[in-house]
Amino acid sequence: MDKITIAVDTMGGDNGCEYIMQGISEALGKFDDINVLVTGNKEELSLLITKYNIDNSRINIIHADEVITCHDAPVDAIRKKKNSSLVLALNEVKEGRAQACISSGNSGAILAGGQFIVGRAKGVKRTPLAPLIPTKTSSSLLIDCGANVDAKPENLVQFAKMGSIYMENIEGVKNPRVGIINIGTEDEKGNALVKATIPLLHECKDINFVGSIESREIPNDVADVLVCEAFVGNVLLKFYEGVGKMFLGEVKGTLKKSIKTKLGAALIYKDLKKCFKRFMADDKGGAPLLGLKGLVVKIHGNSKNREVSSALEQCRTFIIHDVNKKIIQAFENGEA
Amino acid sequence: MDKITIAVDTMGGDNGCEYIMQGISEALGKFDDINVLVTGNKEELSLLITKYNIDNSRINIIHADEVITCHDAPVDAIRKKKNSSLVLALNEVKEGRAQACISSGNSGAILAGGQFIVGRAKGVKRTPLAPLIPTKTSSSLLIDCGANVDAKPENLVQFAKMGSIYMENIEGVKNPRVGIINIGTEDEKGNALVKATIPLLHECKDINFVGSIESREIPNDVADVLVCEAFVGNVLLKFYEGVGKMFLGEVKGTLKKSIKTKLGAALIYKDLKKCFKRFMADDKGGAPLLGLKGLVVKIHGNSKNREVSSALEQCRTFIIHDVNKKIIQAFENGEA
Repeated sequence: MDKITIAVDTMGGDNGCEYIMQGISEALGKFDDINVLVTGNKEELSLLITKYNIDNSRINIIHADEVITCHDAPVDAIRKKKNSSLVLALNEVKEGRAQACISSGNSGAILAGGQFIVGRAKGVKRTPLAPLIPTKTSSSLLIDCGANVDAKPENLVQFAKMGSIYMENIEGVKNPRVGIINIGTEDEKGNALVKATIPLLHECKDINFVGSIESREIPNDVADVLVCEAFVGNVLLKFYEGVGKMFLGEVKGTLKKSIKTKLGAALIYKDLKKCFKRFMADDKGGAPLLGLKGLVVKIHGNSKNREVSSALEQCRTFIIHDVNKKIIQAFENGEA
Repeated sequence: MDKITIAVDTMGGDNGCEYIMQGISEALGKFDDINVLVTGNKEELSLLITKYNIDNSRINIIHADEVITCHDAPVDAIRKKKNSSLVLALNEVKEGRAQACISSGNSGAILAGGQFIVGRAKGVKRTPLAPLIPTKTSSSLLIDCGANVDAKPENLVQFAKMGSIYMENIEGVKNPRVGIINIGTEDEKGNALVKATIPLLHECKDINFVGSIESREIPNDVADVLVCEAFVGNVLLKFYEGVGKMFLGEVKGTLKKSIKTKLGAALIYKDLKKCFKRFMADDKGGAPLLGLKGLVVKIHGNSKNREVSSALEQCRTFIIHDVNKKIIQAFENGEA
C-alpha cells in the first residue's frame, strides 16, 4: 500500500499550533506509513518542525494566511476564506493529495467544508458527525450529532450502516450492536421519524439491530452504535458535556470545602482524577464526519498532543481498512 | 377559600403505600387547609391512618381492587381497569371532588389518564409533562418531557406560557426566563420546528423569552423554563438520570478502591453525599402534567414520604394561586 497522507489544519484551535505539531511528531514516530500535510503559518510551523525533530521528508507545509475563527458564519467562511488553513486542508483531500483531514477549528465550518469541498461519497445521502461517547466500561458511537437536522428514515438507516462499519473497522467491535435512541423500548414508541425508521432497521440484514434504547440506558453499554437524528444527537452530546462538567465541578468544590475534606481529598484525588479522566477520553481520536469522499475528523478546540496523535492513528486505521469503500459497497448492495 | 382536596393514588409505586401515607400525614400536619382522598386497599389504608395518627375527618378512602402496573399498556389500562387506584383518583378530579391528583404509578398511564379522564383545560392544545431538573444553583422546568411527541410551533408557544406561569406561581420566580432548547444560540439555528417557534416566542409579550439555549448550558442556570418538544425533553430527562447515576457509581467505586481511598472517603463522604443529594431533589414535589382541568402530578415510582409531602404542598400552592385559571386566561387573551 502507498503511504497514507493526512492533512492537518494547525490553526483555528484554542491552543495555537504547538500542541498539534507535537502530536504530529508523536504519531510520525509511532507509524512509519503516514505522511502529513500541515496548513498554517509557514514560519511558525518550520520552527516547530525543527523543535520537535520532525523528518522533513514526511511533512509538507502549505502556507495559510487566513483563519476561520469560531465567530465566523460557517458556510460563508468556507466560501470566502479560500486561503484559510481549514479550506486549504480540505482542498488537499478534495484534490486527492491527502486521504483524510483533521481540524480543531470552527465545528460548523468543518461540517460545511466537508460537504461542500470534499463532497459526499457515492450513494451517501447525508454525512453524519459521529463522536464516540464514553459509557461505564466502553464507548458508543453517537450518530448523528452534526448540524444537518430533520433527517428522513432512509438517512437514519444509512447512519446505522456507516456507524456499524466504523465501529467494526476502527474500534474492532465484532458485529456491533446498533440501537436507535427512543423514548421507550417497545417498537410502537417514538416520534414519527423513529417509528418509520424502526421497521427499516429490522429489515437490514447487514447490521445487528438491537432495537430502541432509552437514553437513561446509554451509560450502560447497551449498544455500540446509537442512531439518532442530528438535533437529538447534538443536544445529547452537549448535555453530556455540560452535566459532566457540572458534576466534576461539584465534586471538586466539595473536596475543597473544609480542612477535613481537603485531607480526604489528598487521599483520593489521584484515583478520582483517573476516574473522571476516562470521561474526557482523548485517546479515541476525534469525531469523524462520515460518508465523504475522504475522511474529515473534528477534534476539540482545546486538543493537546495526545488527541492529535490519536486522531492521526484514527485516520490511518480508517484508510488502511478502506472504510469508505466498505460504506460505498454497503449502499450499492444494500437496501439504502 | 374552601378546603383543598387532593386525590392520592396509593398503589402502583415501588414502595407500597406506607411511605405515601406517611407523607400525607406530614403534609396534613403542616397545612390545615388541605384534605385528602386516597385510593387503594381500604383495609391496609385504614391501619396506616391509625398508625400515623391521621385525622379521620381530613381523609377519605376510596377502595380500589385493581392496580395499573408498569407492565400495563397505558391507554388500554386506563380504559379497562376502571377500578384501579389511578383511574379512581383521576375520576375524583374529573368529578370535581378533588382539585388535584398525585400518583407514583405507570407514567404512561398517568399521562394518558390525565388527558382522557381529567381532560384538557379550555384553550389548551397539548398537556405537557414538566419536571424541574436540578442545575448548579437552582432548577429549571423542562417542558415537555411527556409521551405526546411531534409537537407543532403553537404547542411549544403554549408550553412556554404554561411553564412561565408555573414557575412564577409555584416556584416564586419573578419574570421567569424562558429559553428554547436548540443546537446553537443564533435564531437561524435549529430544526424546522424550533426555527418556526422562535419568531412566535419573540412575539409573545407575556413571557420573558431569552432565546435559544444550548444543552451544555442547561446546568448553568441560564433559563427558568426550558421549552422543547417531548421527544427531546424525554430523552434529555432520562439521559440526565442515567449520567447522574453513572457518575455517582463511578465516584462511589473509586472511593472503595483501596484502604487509602476508603480512609479519604470517610473524611469526605458526608459532604459528598450532600452534594449528590441535591441532584436527587425530593423536596420539589413531582412533575406536573399541565393544562388539564385539574392538576395531575407524577411522582417517582420509588418516592418516599418526603416527595409525597412535597407533592401535596405543590398541589396546594397550584390551587391557592389558581394556576389553571391563569393558564386559561393567558390562552384567551394571548396569541396562542
